[in-house]
Amino acid sequence: MSSTYGKSLSLTIFGQSHGAAVGMTLDGIPAGLPVDTEKLQYFLNRRAPGQSQFTTPRKEEDIPQFLSGILDGYTCGAPIAAIIPNRNTRSGDYANLKDCPRPGHADYTAQIKYKGYQDSAGGGHFSGRLTAPLCIAGGLCLQWLEQKGIRIRCHISEIAGIPDGPAILDPVNPDLDAIKEAFPVVNEDAGEQMKNAITTAFKNSDSVGGIVECFATGLPAGLGDPMFDGMENRIAQIVYGIPAVKGLEFGSGFAVSRLLGSENNDPFTVSEGRILTGTNHAGGILGGITNGMPLIFRVALKPTPSIAKIQQSVSLSKMENTDLKITGRHDPCIVLRAVPVVEAAAAIAIFDAML
Amino acid sequence: MSSTYGKSLSLTIFGQSHGAAVGMTLDGIPAGLPVDTEKLQYFLNRRAPGQSQFTTPRKEEDIPQFLSGILDGYTCGAPIAAIIPNRNTRSGDYANLKDCPRPGHADYTAQIKYKGYQDSAGGGHFSGRLTAPLCIAGGLCLQWLEQKGIRIRCHISEIAGIPDGPAILDPVNPDLDAIKEAFPVVNEDAGEQMKNAITTAFKNSDSVGGIVECFATGLPAGLGDPMFDGMENRIAQIVYGIPAVKGLEFGSGFAVSRLLGSENNDPFTVSEGRILTGTNHAGGILGGITNGMPLIFRVALKPTPSIAKIQQSVSLSKMENTDLKITGRHDPCIVLRAVPVVEAAAAIAIFDAML
Amino acid sequence: MSSTYGKSLSLTIFGQSHGAAVGMTLDGIPAGLPVDTEKLQYFLNRRAPGQSQFTTPRKEEDIPQFLSGILDGYTCGAPIAAIIPNRNTRSGDYANLKDCPRPGHADYTAQIKYKGYQDSAGGGHFSGRLTAPLCIAGGLCLQWLEQKGIRIRCHISEIAGIPDGPAILDPVNPDLDAIKEAFPVVNEDAGEQMKNAITTAFKNSDSVGGIVECFATGLPAGLGDPMFDGMENRIAQIVYGIPAVKGLEFGSGFAVSRLLGSENNDPFTVSEGRILTGTNHAGGILGGITNGMPLIFRVALKPTPSIAKIQQSVSLSKMENTDLKITGRHDPCIVLRAVPVVEAAAAIAIFDAML
Amino acid sequence: MSSTYGKSLSLTIFGQSHGAAVGMTLDGIPAGLPVDTEKLQYFLNRRAPGQSQFTTPRKEEDIPQFLSGILDGYTCGAPIAAIIPNRNTRSGDYANLKDCPRPGHADYTAQIKYKGYQDSAGGGHFSGRLTAPLCIAGGLCLQWLEQKGIRIRCHISEIAGIPDGPAILDPVNPDLDAIKEAFPVVNEDAGEQMKNAITTAFKNSDSVGGIVECFATGLPAGLGDPMFDGMENRIAQIVYGIPAVKGLEFGSGFAVSRLLGSENNDPFTVSEGRILTGTNHAGGILGGITNGMPLIFRVALKPTPSIAKIQQSVSLSKMENTDLKITGRHDPCIVLRAVPVVEAAAAIAIFDAML
Repeated sequence: MSSTYGKSLSLTIFGQSHGAAVGMTLDGIPAGLPVDTEKLQYFLNRRAPGQSQFTTPRKEEDIPQFLSGILDGYTCGAPIAAIIPNRNTRSGDYANLKDCPRPGHADYTAQIKYKGYQDSAGGGHFSGRLTAPLCIAGGLCLQWLEQKGIRIRCHISEIAGIPDGPAILDPVNPDLDAIKEAFPVVNEDAGEQMKNAITTAFKNSDSVGGIVECFATGLPAGLGDPMFDGMENRIAQIVYGIPAVKGLEFGSGFAVSRLLGSENNDPFTVSEGRILTGTNHAGGILGGITNGMPLIFRVALKPTPSIAKIQQSVSLSKMENTDLKITGRHDPCIVLRAVPVVEAAAAIAIFDAML
Repeated sequence: MSSTYGKSLSLTIFGQSHGAAVGMTLDGIPAGLPVDTEKLQYFLNRRAPGQSQFTTPRKEEDIPQFLSGILDGYTCGAPIAAIIPNRNTRSGDYANLKDCPRPGHADYTAQIKYKGYQDSAGGGHFSGRLTAPLCIAGGLCLQWLEQKGIRIRCHISEIAGIPDGPAILDPVNPDLDAIKEAFPVVNEDAGEQMKNAITTAFKNSDSVGGIVECFATGLPAGLGDPMFDGMENRIAQIVYGIPAVKGLEFGSGFAVSRLLGSENNDPFTVSEGRILTGTNHAGGILGGITNGMPLIFRVALKPTPSIAKIQQSVSLSKMENTDLKITGRHDPCIVLRAVPVVEAAAAIAIFDAML
Repeated sequence: MSSTYGKSLSLTIFGQSHGAAVGMTLDGIPAGLPVDTEKLQYFLNRRAPGQSQFTTPRKEEDIPQFLSGILDGYTCGAPIAAIIPNRNTRSGDYANLKDCPRPGHADYTAQIKYKGYQDSAGGGHFSGRLTAPLCIAGGLCLQWLEQKGIRIRCHISEIAGIPDGPAILDPVNPDLDAIKEAFPVVNEDAGEQMKNAITTAFKNSDSVGGIVECFATGLPAGLGDPMFDGMENRIAQIVYGIPAVKGLEFGSGFAVSRLLGSENNDPFTVSEGRILTGTNHAGGILGGITNGMPLIFRVALKPTPSIAKIQQSVSLSKMENTDLKITGRHDPCIVLRAVPVVEAAAAIAIFDAML
Repeated sequence: MSSTYGKSLSLTIFGQSHGAAVGMTLDGIPAGLPVDTEKLQYFLNRRAPGQSQFTTPRKEEDIPQFLSGILDGYTCGAPIAAIIPNRNTRSGDYANLKDCPRPGHADYTAQIKYKGYQDSAGGGHFSGRLTAPLCIAGGLCLQWLEQKGIRIRCHISEIAGIPDGPAILDPVNPDLDAIKEAFPVVNEDAGEQMKNAITTAFKNSDSVGGIVECFATGLPAGLGDPMFDGMENRIAQIVYGIPAVKGLEFGSGFAVSRLLGSENNDPFTVSEGRILTGTNHAGGILGGITNGMPLIFRVALKPTPSIAKIQQSVSLSKMENTDLKITGRHDPCIVLRAVPVVEAAAAIAIFDAML
């Protein structure tokens, strides 16, 4: 059941990188919600590969085929199923991965867990390609949340240690429109530096990581539950399903550990008949439940493990050390394409909490 | 179902801070596992309040009463149920919290969600007191894991920005016995500075936060599942159920975002017939699945929100700003008591994954 | 997780027949629902043993102690926990059950599954005593359903082959008040014959079974879901958790297999601005979803397996046949006490579907 | 989540009768299990329509396309996904079902629940066509169970009140090979009478129902769990997901209610070093757990609700009574095609319990 997520809804992701198709089923969605497929496609294109010089040249159009659950432009109450057939499939590129696992990838752990029966081509079920069906589900949830006045938007907070800024998004009242479209940063100069860092890494047969920061605005107070089903728990369970995520923090996150209580506590205040907080170190969540302020979290993404540099690995059959040269071409930085994926994950978790 | 955790086991936590009792049920545990109640009590005492000058003087002995599931010192296959009756209960200390929510607490969000019916005394179901039954379940899992050669141990990695160290625990081969007993740091000088920071905060009617770092050693490779049931996801879902947690990172965590791929990828190597990695930036997890290296994560805890300083809040009935003075005495720093709680949470998640 | 039930709510039952206590936790209940403990006690007393000559003389008062989740007479949103301490516990009556399993009981299967670690006294976790906490949860749900105009009521449809009747309850418009209080049949003469059959069985050191029929009226149309979460599936999952149940049928049940389609199809009709059906062979459920007609099901209960007659069993240690004489006193017929238990189970399933 | 089943595995069924495709995902299956697609196709053909004069002439080949989870003839550990594209789709046959619901169908309850957004063509997600993907999952589980020496086989126990027999299958030691292939009864004369009853019903523009009896042999003792996850509960949850099922009984089922305890209790006996029972009224299940004897249950199926006779229904828009004439052709008896479906459901439930 590892590929299933949700409390009120149930999302199942299936597929392998080089299998016949990737896809998803989404159950528990009320009937009568409108589906704008053009808008969805626009969203999916943000994640799709081959769109810029900063991403892998593997070309997939990522046009979902809906098999069920949608009728005449509206959800019909039955489970929604959609698939994206894979075109660029199984090549010889991955022949030796079962014997010689790539550092930083799941090749070795899959070999142990699935005893050699796993589909190792392109990482199989562990591939970043599986974020495409996640974005189908998330893109739908984003549409439905928008109709309730909820916006979810990410920017690249850091790449290779280069922060977006100095102007930042106000945690109390963030201007989400300040985030640029093509390369989603607030500060374009910072964005240029990030691009340079990616280009440099690529030239050096290397890769870089980064941090994506997500804002959800317009949320009602009262979403989420205490203990194990709080908004942090729900978001964490889905966000850690995105490959390459190694850290997740809410509000001021790790920085709260260095604040005094009198600094970190967000004072309540009445403003125009509403209860707000003057600061937002809590990231919009208290006791696992939204307080009506912007929900904010940051996600740390590791540098793409597939690099062209020669690396040290092992031959599992010979049980001896060996050098590994990964062929094929890969994203030198996953962060740009992760931006819509994190938005999708947040949308699914929040929409689930609202059902 | 917010207070229920687990895939193969099912843990339910119940109780309110000032109710009749707190407790837990733990279902899905195989029959025939031995239960050492003395050892469990020793573990629970590490979390119990009133044990040192650094924790709240509220006195609770935290001796669990087992109601079911254990017979003659062994699990019998039926759900385990245990309660800890509350002795220090409902005082007038919390009378006005429904109208005037404490900044940084769940008072306001509980009021919105439960419409005034919530038990607000002492934070009710949101209280840190609910970590006592979590520690019953976790203390049992720790025993059962130890029998399989698995150790789980935390140290205080930071308090008030003061890091444990400079000697740190090697992520590849950590010496868990280097962690001190009473105040669990590796470096006692660092520990003394932390204690001073807590004392200073307390004198200033304030509080401080910190970071707890957890190590699990002796794990087999192959635990966990891809996507939403990876070890990161499972640990995140339970750890974010601990009050005050605002950040969670695995392995090198947020720092991986600033590494090159060639730095971050842990090279595989054969050593004495076993596959190891030369570094451990991954924190023992690749693709959600353990790789046999130490599993490492860090948890950011905010400063205790209950401080003696006057704070700004609101009167919900009058919808106007008001000053709030919190009476009663509280932990100036929750980090010390959080250490066994994080160990318990890790043990539950890992034991669940092993079933 | 075998002892946990529910989709929107989560009910966990714990305890063994001769352990310290039996109890339940009930999570996912909205805050602000009133709890009438007197009414609950009245309901629990209907199930309690020792109330008449037709039930076991084991005396348990079955007064629940609420540990959490209820404050000042209302649910507070936190998980509800309640226990009933066992008074009449562990005697020598059950000493040899591990070696010589009772026919018709779970002694043998528990021995296989729990490898001798199970609590065999009184059937342990398999005991009918575990229906007491089920009735706590169900009694609460019954109260909350009544406030919405929903009534759930069972009568004894058969004991030892003797049917209630000839007057029966109209499936389209049942008069639930026609069911008698103390011995819940519609026809008192039939009830007297049933009592005689029980008395006769008891005198012969034997036992009898029967059928309980359950009606739920006042249900809105639209409850339940297609496929695996239909009302039939939901009710089946909880009803088969009641010991001794071996059959369950909805509406006309097994009899529909002998009807023509033109007989079995309930014709729709408009009556006073509402859609009704002229007959109710469907038992109020079409496609798993309620249609607004009375929901009706019947439960077959086997004769109490504990009988005073000498029976053939085996010695597991010697692997040879042996005679078994069960001592202690037992219900010669479980059907009377099962009536409130079936009502409780139906109430939990229906309340869960309404959340 | 209504269309998702399983504890250790997770089966999701999707599709509508006249949508693009029907399909399933099956998660939680271990890697390395062989898949015999020819054998699977043979099994699926038993359910497919248009195979004989006794079933609907709608022609669907029901050849599944596997999209993921299977590699080189073995499961690879990733979720298995398979679809069957619909060829015979959306016609005008179903145009008025939203306004004029068919008696005995889910048209009315779907209209209430999904507010007019449901896909009503051919019953949409409620259609018997959704049993095709159930049979994909079940057909795979049957293969994997067979490798462990477990056989699951159903016969038609009754159609239109005509019983299979007089020779019946011994509940203690059933000869499953006595069940005929094409028309699965034990007694061919009885089978001929059943066929005649179906033909007669069809000529009369009517339909008939029946009872399917299922046997599972070779099961180990110890499968299943107490209370809500017993084998009865698990099987009930999936079997009630098959359209037209209105009753389910285990072992002697409803008949046990008329037996004495001394008759119903199955005596234990030692035979060739194994523990058996002399009779099998329990149907192989005690306390929810298998005892190693054949697991036996019976399923009551209602007559096909789609009949050519004019029936009484209502116009929902006009809120007045109206006559309904169902066009198109339908199975006059669903029982024959239900046989492999019940086998599939049993296989899924049992395989899930074995994981």
